[in-house]
Amino acid sequence: MKLEMLRENIDRIDQQILKLLNDRMEQAVMTRKFKKNTEDDEREKIVLKKIYDNSHGLLKGDFTDRIYKIIIEESKKLQNIPCTVIGFQGEHGAYSEEAAKKWDNSGVTVPCLEFEDVFEGVEAGLYDYGLVPVENNLGGIVGEVNSLLLKKDLKVVAAVEMAVSHCLMILPGSDYREVRNAFSHNQALSQCRDFLSRNKLEPAPYYDTAGAARMISRKQLKGSAAIASRLAANLYGLEIIKENIQDRDDNKTRFFIISKVDDRKTKGSKCSIVFSTEHKTGSLFKTLNIFAEAGINLTRIESVPSAPGEFAFFLDFQIKEDDPAVKVLFDKLKEATTGFKVLGFYNEKTI
Amino acid sequence: MKLEMLRENIDRIDQQILKLLNDRMEQAVMTRKFKKNTEDDEREKIVLKKIYDNSHGLLKGDFTDRIYKIIIEESKKLQNIPCTVIGFQGEHGAYSEEAAKKWDNSGVTVPCLEFEDVFEGVEAGLYDYGLVPVENNLGGIVGEVNSLLLKKDLKVVAAVEMAVSHCLMILPGSDYREVRNAFSHNQALSQCRDFLSRNKLEPAPYYDTAGAARMISRKQLKGSAAIASRLAANLYGLEIIKENIQDRDDNKTRFFIISKVDDRKTKGSKCSIVFSTEHKTGSLFKTLNIFAEAGINLTRIESVPSAPGEFAFFLDFQIKEDDPAVKVLFDKLKEATTGFKVLGFYNEKTI
Repeated sequence: MKLEMLRENIDRIDQQILKLLNDRMEQAVMTRKFKKNTEDDEREKIVLKKIYDNSHGLLKGDFTDRIYKIIIEESKKLQNIPCTVIGFQGEHGAYSEEAAKKWDNSGVTVPCLEFEDVFEGVEAGLYDYGLVPVENNLGGIVGEVNSLLLKKDLKVVAAVEMAVSHCLMILPGSDYREVRNAFSHNQALSQCRDFLSRNKLEPAPYYDTAGAARMISRKQLKGSAAIASRLAANLYGLEIIKENIQDRDDNKTRFFIISKVDDRKTKGSKCSIVFSTEHKTGSLFKTLNIFAEAGINLTRIESVPSAPGEFAFFLDFQIKEDDPAVKVLFDKLKEATTGFKVLGFYNEKTI
Repeated sequence: MKLEMLRENIDRIDQQILKLLNDRMEQAVMTRKFKKNTEDDEREKIVLKKIYDNSHGLLKGDFTDRIYKIIIEESKKLQNIPCTVIGFQGEHGAYSEEAAKKWDNSGVTVPCLEFEDVFEGVEAGLYDYGLVPVENNLGGIVGEVNSLLLKKDLKVVAAVEMAVSHCLMILPGSDYREVRNAFSHNQALSQCRDFLSRNKLEPAPYYDTAGAARMISRKQLKGSAAIASRLAANLYGLEIIKENIQDRDDNKTRFFIISKVDDRKTKGSKCSIVFSTEHKTGSLFKTLNIFAEAGINLTRIESVPSAPGEFAFFLDFQIKEDDPAVKVLFDKLKEATTGFKVLGFYNEKTI
């Protein structure tokens, strides 16, 4: 029926309008740090004039003016509520956003296209924090993030480990028995391979897990499911058919929370450092021996190519930040290595 | 400066919101014909509930509810204003839309992706009329439109001929001397070849003329121009540097206005027909001879492949609709041809 079709179009347009309104509020909240006052009559007048002048076709200037006065009012209200802005890589509904929400439920989470955008946004002061994955116990390390930690001068101020629960989701009201395939990021698809094969679901690779959920919702795709986070199902109005569909139960991702300033209130019990060693046999062994002799427990060691033929080593270990042993350790490490850098002291929690 | 960048993002988001609000109003106006009453409390409640439920992130349900009550109010107001809906192929600001506005200034013009969408929308009653180009004196016939006229059972109720004026446009306030290239549809670029070469502007092919203008505006691209209609410059807030930049002054496009019902108030002075002839030498000649003997002035003849190895002939000619000669002519044509179809009687004007 034609009316039905037009109403579906309207619903789809409304989804997009809501997304853009949220994007707009995110940008507005970020402006807060770069101006003295949320009241800016001059800018307000410019925005309202632009809106009026650009109201073409069926849009009357008086109508859009009314709408935008409310939008600006709301935007100022949000700017006056103290909040923490956290940048993450991916679309709204990504596992990184789920982790950010679990770390700070009141934080405003802002999506970034690339990991580099997260780092640069934190450097520029757009985000108070960035949340980036550093390792997944099944998928391995996130090399790009380690390279950025090496290159940029940001502090690791916290770490969280989150159990990844892949959820199978469909359009509400559609028939699960008619679902033939499941869209998701390749890594998620491969982590659910047995489940998909048992349920005769064709894996359909998509660039992003949350993006797959959004696509199903936007296109109102019946007969297809998405594999994504609980948050994505919630955001895009999908119904979760089954939770925890990953083949292995110990699927965990570890995230770093990075910041420009170290504003922690409590001392850390974990430390991350990065260094290089000379191109000589045994130089890494000698460095690791410093830890062994001091009886310090290493929780991660990773080598990341830093320049052609050269490697940087990332080490995480347990040590009390205010332990006098720290100074002794660091002095020895500075002696034994090149480019020694403390990424940060922090506390790590499982969320 | 960061604040500047965030404000540019906000302005870009606002452009998209305005576009979507206009799209939404277009869809709403179209629903009018498929329901008895613009008041539909049930549907209104469903929409408002969906909006409330889908208000995530920084969007508070109370805020979006306020916004949407105004949107729905405006949408009902528009549905109660009598208006004609005209479908055209292309984006807002296309030459077809310019022609539609010149033909009926109060009409609501709705963009379609493909020519077929225009025809199907008219068939389905979504649009009162469709406006489609049939020939351009430089670019030749629009084959796809002729094939659709043959296939679909719609009436030609008017024809208009419009002089195409290509305009060179840039972002307001940017320096024309810094412009290095011009984005537009290939056909427009080739029609302005001498101008571009004289002004040392690199032609930059784009899928659509109006789309090029929209892209320049959206990306705030300095150093690039677009070639498009005056309407596109107006819609996308660009500044026209020069009008009529086409190399030949006689660049004209002829459009048909198609409809499901023939609701003309005045008798036509022109007629369009389509027919096939037998696969025999001289059969087209014999048919054309009928016109010659009756002293009827042909204004267009075109052959369009209708099936493998077969052709349909499109003929336009001048004849008064109420002339008794019409019946005689049509009787003779039915005898001499196969698949004879009258596309319509109409008046043609230059706009």
